[in-house]
Amino acid sequence: MSGEKRIAVLVSGGGTNLQALLDAEARGDLQPGKIAAVVASAPGVYALERAKQAGVPAYVMARKDYPSSKAYTIALTEFLQGQKIDLVILAGFMTILTEEMVKAFPNAILNVHPALIPSFCGAGYFGLHVHEAALSYGVKVSGATVHFVSEECDGGPIVMQKAVPVLEGDTPETLQRRVMEQAEWQILPQAAALFCRGRLRVHGRVVHITEE
Amino acid sequence: MSGEKRIAVLVSGGGTNLQALLDAEARGDLQPGKIAAVVASAPGVYALERAKQAGVPAYVMARKDYPSSKAYTIALTEFLQGQKIDLVILAGFMTILTEEMVKAFPNAILNVHPALIPSFCGAGYFGLHVHEAALSYGVKVSGATVHFVSEECDGGPIVMQKAVPVLEGDTPETLQRRVMEQAEWQILPQAAALFCRGRLRVHGRVVHITEE
Repeated sequence: MSGEKRIAVLVSGGGTNLQALLDAEARGDLQPGKIAAVVASAPGVYALERAKQAGVPAYVMARKDYPSSKAYTIALTEFLQGQKIDLVILAGFMTILTEEMVKAFPNAILNVHPALIPSFCGAGYFGLHVHEAALSYGVKVSGATVHFVSEECDGGPIVMQKAVPVLEGDTPETLQRRVMEQAEWQILPQAAALFCRGRLRVHGRVVHITEE
Repeated sequence: MSGEKRIAVLVSGGGTNLQALLDAEARGDLQPGKIAAVVASAPGVYALERAKQAGVPAYVMARKDYPSSKAYTIALTEFLQGQKIDLVILAGFMTILTEEMVKAFPNAILNVHPALIPSFCGAGYFGLHVHEAALSYGVKVSGATVHFVSEECDGGPIVMQKAVPVLEGDTPETLQRRVMEQAEWQILPQAAALFCRGRLRVHGRVVHITEE
């Protein structure tokens, strides 16, 4: 299909954000985006099963097979370039990537962070730790952020954010689930679709969303 | 009225948040809270006119009449204690208060901040500067926070937060207006009412809202 945008989704675990992307594609909501490859940083993760069930080519590039983060990043970047990938999505990808990938895919790598950046982000804020920090701080609103990946951890231009309430009695687990269901799984496919439709314009730190 | 809670609202300017509180009281939404005094840090501000129109006793305690922030804070604290105030609300009060007031009114001073704390808060983040910072950072969601005042700037326990979208084409002024209308003017009266109904429990940094 002319104008098709090839998406690679990088995963490390269960792949719930991958599933949200696969579901969006099945509904036609990612067009002209097409999930062309799923790459896992370790074998045996359930995300690979999700890719297989959706008929998407799935690959394992195990971090442990490379001597350094840099060597791993370079090999992964070359693989993605060989696959003619237009958009890379980090969907719960827990492996450190170095600047070589950002340079190869400038403003073409999306990450989802489970908080409203600049709150509860940066080094050490991943997974449940983010929600533990939010609850300890006592915020009443949290949410998720989809941003372009830059060389600064969680510091790239913000594409979309969605707020979610913190409720009485929340644990890190209940808050994590609500942020996933009500924010991450919605805005990650939406941001990917906006990218594929050419509707994102990055000016410095600010992402403008153009009219259709 | 038995069980009435006496509220003092401290103002420095136009008093739009004061108006939201006066409107809530007129609707019966502040009960058992009663706005018993409005105190302005300078003469001639429009907030005084709003108090007069609502029939609320209004006072001017001008910062310039005192030699230091500490002397001003002590005089103001003594005034509020003399008025048997239960809850102090800083509604756009732009004058520095020192720890004497926090000690006299522990977890009984509410402030409203025009962002989702811990984003865009602390020293230097006041008024339009907050919204300029949010737009420069490129967030897609902002909002407002009502928190108890502690000795740390914008650092006290959070009572309520409400998110507001940042829209394409926003200026600091349009974002400020939306945050006021859709967040500040709603959550400040709601938080005051919860306080007056005895429904707030502070545990460390976290404010729990009890069932009615």
